[in-house]
Amino acid sequence: MSNPKQISLGVSMRYLGYHAAAWRHPSADPDAASRFSHYRYIAQTAEAAKMDMVFLADGVGMRTKDEPPGALRRSHQTLELEPLTLLAALSSVTSRIGLVATASTTYNEPYHIARKWASLDHLSGGRAGWNIVTSWSEAEAHNFNRDRHMEYDLRYERAAEFVEVVKGLWDSWEADAPVFDKQSGILFDQSKLHVLNHVGKHFKVKGPLTIKRTPQGRPILVQAGAAEQGLEIAARSADVVYAAPHDLAAGKAYYANLKDRLATHGRERDSLKIMPGVTLFIGRTRQEAQDQYDLLASLVEPELGLSYLYAQMGDLSGYPLDGPVPEPSNPQVRSLARGLLALARRDNLTIRQLYGTIAAGFGGRTFIGTPKDIVDDMQEWVEAEAADGFNLCPPVLPLGLDQFVELVLPEMRARGLFRTDYAGPTLRETLGLTPPPNRYAP
Amino acid sequence: MSNPKQISLGVSMRYLGYHAAAWRHPSADPDAASRFSHYRYIAQTAEAAKMDMVFLADGVGMRTKDEPPGALRRSHQTLELEPLTLLAALSSVTSRIGLVATASTTYNEPYHIARKWASLDHLSGGRAGWNIVTSWSEAEAHNFNRDRHMEYDLRYERAAEFVEVVKGLWDSWEADAPVFDKQSGILFDQSKLHVLNHVGKHFKVKGPLTIKRTPQGRPILVQAGAAEQGLEIAARSADVVYAAPHDLAAGKAYYANLKDRLATHGRERDSLKIMPGVTLFIGRTRQEAQDQYDLLASLVEPELGLSYLYAQMGDLSGYPLDGPVPEPSNPQVRSLARGLLALARRDNLTIRQLYGTIAAGFGGRTFIGTPKDIVDDMQEWVEAEAADGFNLCPPVLPLGLDQFVELVLPEMRARGLFRTDYAGPTLRETLGLTPPPNRYAP
Repeated sequence: MSNPKQISLGVSMRYLGYHAAAWRHPSADPDAASRFSHYRYIAQTAEAAKMDMVFLADGVGMRTKDEPPGALRRSHQTLELEPLTLLAALSSVTSRIGLVATASTTYNEPYHIARKWASLDHLSGGRAGWNIVTSWSEAEAHNFNRDRHMEYDLRYERAAEFVEVVKGLWDSWEADAPVFDKQSGILFDQSKLHVLNHVGKHFKVKGPLTIKRTPQGRPILVQAGAAEQGLEIAARSADVVYAAPHDLAAGKAYYANLKDRLATHGRERDSLKIMPGVTLFIGRTRQEAQDQYDLLASLVEPELGLSYLYAQMGDLSGYPLDGPVPEPSNPQVRSLARGLLALARRDNLTIRQLYGTIAAGFGGRTFIGTPKDIVDDMQEWVEAEAADGFNLCPPVLPLGLDQFVELVLPEMRARGLFRTDYAGPTLRETLGLTPPPNRYAP
Repeated sequence: MSNPKQISLGVSMRYLGYHAAAWRHPSADPDAASRFSHYRYIAQTAEAAKMDMVFLADGVGMRTKDEPPGALRRSHQTLELEPLTLLAALSSVTSRIGLVATASTTYNEPYHIARKWASLDHLSGGRAGWNIVTSWSEAEAHNFNRDRHMEYDLRYERAAEFVEVVKGLWDSWEADAPVFDKQSGILFDQSKLHVLNHVGKHFKVKGPLTIKRTPQGRPILVQAGAAEQGLEIAARSADVVYAAPHDLAAGKAYYANLKDRLATHGRERDSLKIMPGVTLFIGRTRQEAQDQYDLLASLVEPELGLSYLYAQMGDLSGYPLDGPVPEPSNPQVRSLARGLLALARRDNLTIRQLYGTIAAGFGGRTFIGTPKDIVDDMQEWVEAEAADGFNLCPPVLPLGLDQFVELVLPEMRARGLFRTDYAGPTLRETLGLTPPPNRYAP
């Protein structure tokens, strides 16, 4: 292959990394998740490495259930900064890296989201992205006047309408609407300012935005479409999808399914980038990589580790941690636990090993290896059409990013899989995507 | 007076300045309101001058009524950036100046506001302020699922509860709750994390925030309390009030009224700063200052100028602009027009002069004079207890700020009325206010 397909790379930077014990790692500053300088270092490092984007997952609440007792106070999923303000602050100390923040369609209003992300796109010179989520936790519902979470179908119905309203508001101003003619006193061409007048089941939004058309036409839309309704939103509107398959077969099936749907929306197959998440444990040798995994695993206290099994399996505190994973006696819990039990049986895991597996990447896919192993794996996923790139979820930050840049990127570049410079100033150009037309423009 | 009272100074930086023709001024870049570098220059200039804060007013909508026809496309109150994202972006390129953004309690949820402003306070190292408004325009209602604006009393009732919820969420974490003990694996002291569990008429919000206690304890609260309900919210919670009186007598009455209310909430008189807005036309001579006013007035096209009278007086397009202001024939319009008519009669203004007066500072107080005149005026307001400082609303930006820094600040400093350096890193310290206690802390 003289011209291998280029791989897109994002860095997820929530909390102090994706390992449950990240904050206890010798390299970690445990207070860094509340400190701007920490994120500035990550974003500037990723930008110097010419990566596509930094990303912040989000939930608008904290689960305060302390199950089993003692777990909550050991969790670093309790302290963070708010994604939109953080990425806006990063926009002025970076110049090329994409800035993708999450916001929920269940607990926001489309006018705010359209306006804030349009603003971020201007502030950053065309580097904003919105990761569309519908939220899932009771903790979030309880912060927004609800006793329980909105039910699934309604949530996705709302999300689909929400996204259409936001896209409509982003078309308020045609690109050449402002004329700024000081002589005649005419600031804009009124025929190119459009009032949306949306009236739907969930929203009634008039518009227009008071923000002119953005450098990217509109911000990049990101989705993590898993179930049917999410896949349809992704196929219709997303530029990037953060997928979550754990193995290559599932990745290929997901990729084919989603890419096949694009045609029904009149879209090309390469107009959407699929970027599965992965937590990498990187070493110069396999032993060094395994040592990194083991060190972090040893820092997961039982209370915290068992909390990752609690929701599916109930309280396992009474069982020997280094013994087998028990079959739950409660039949209700048993059905929830099926996936975890299957994993434990397949790999013959103890309780400690099982929670260590989950804790290693907050439940996402993990991979332990040398730079060569890792790039082999990436290349395999891309060539097999299971991925267009990867959303890196480092176990510890900034360490995991520094290791990736130092060890893995050179191997990727040696194989011609990753850029040596940015194609243009906007995230859209970096991703190789074409600007969207304005629905009103001729 | 050997130790005159220090004057607080803020700079309002919405749009391209507070004059309706600001964008047509020879010094203005008419596209600058959409550009980060414009605001960065303003914030960094104000910071180099040791001013207290920059401020962004806001409304979440655009009035698209084109009355009289041709007015809308001449208005620069149509293009801007969103305040919160903009101030977050400024936080990383400034280090001392306060950053105050407006958000509406009618069209937001308290959990979002508490979280975003807490985040901005961390990002900025303790320089965030929230200007609490209830919104007033139909245009905003139409962007948020409503046919008309929420009625006045309900709006303020919601605002009062909203502010209490936000303050409660800001107390979620006691300052010393995080312990970050890597050895024991305990990240925080759970007895110092507090769940609000608010249940009220308008909101049900559980909490806690996932953001630790902020550098200022909580962000600075700003209000523009005018009517009764607003004054009560200000007296109870505000650190700063942007007042709007047009003359000294009204300013004194407002000041006395608000300061007197503080005691009923157990607050000291100097725990709240009253900062009336003013648009200054500054010249080395009075003639030069008047010339600046006249130049800008000449740039207000009749369509635009008449739009500032339209809501109160109806369409005056048929009347000679340089003739007297007519008595409206419609009795309904007549009562709305009373204030404007009284002003026109008192100063014997033509239609053109009347709209020029309004257009000069978007309806706020204006003052034309030399640095000496301006500082005399400021000193008079402060000594008469009508103000603790001023919220400057320059007619054209950045010109008006540059002139203020170059011409007026030296005169203020010569009289010992304004600082030569910041007292500390936080806005609270700059304003000379004490940190709020956490309601849960011993």
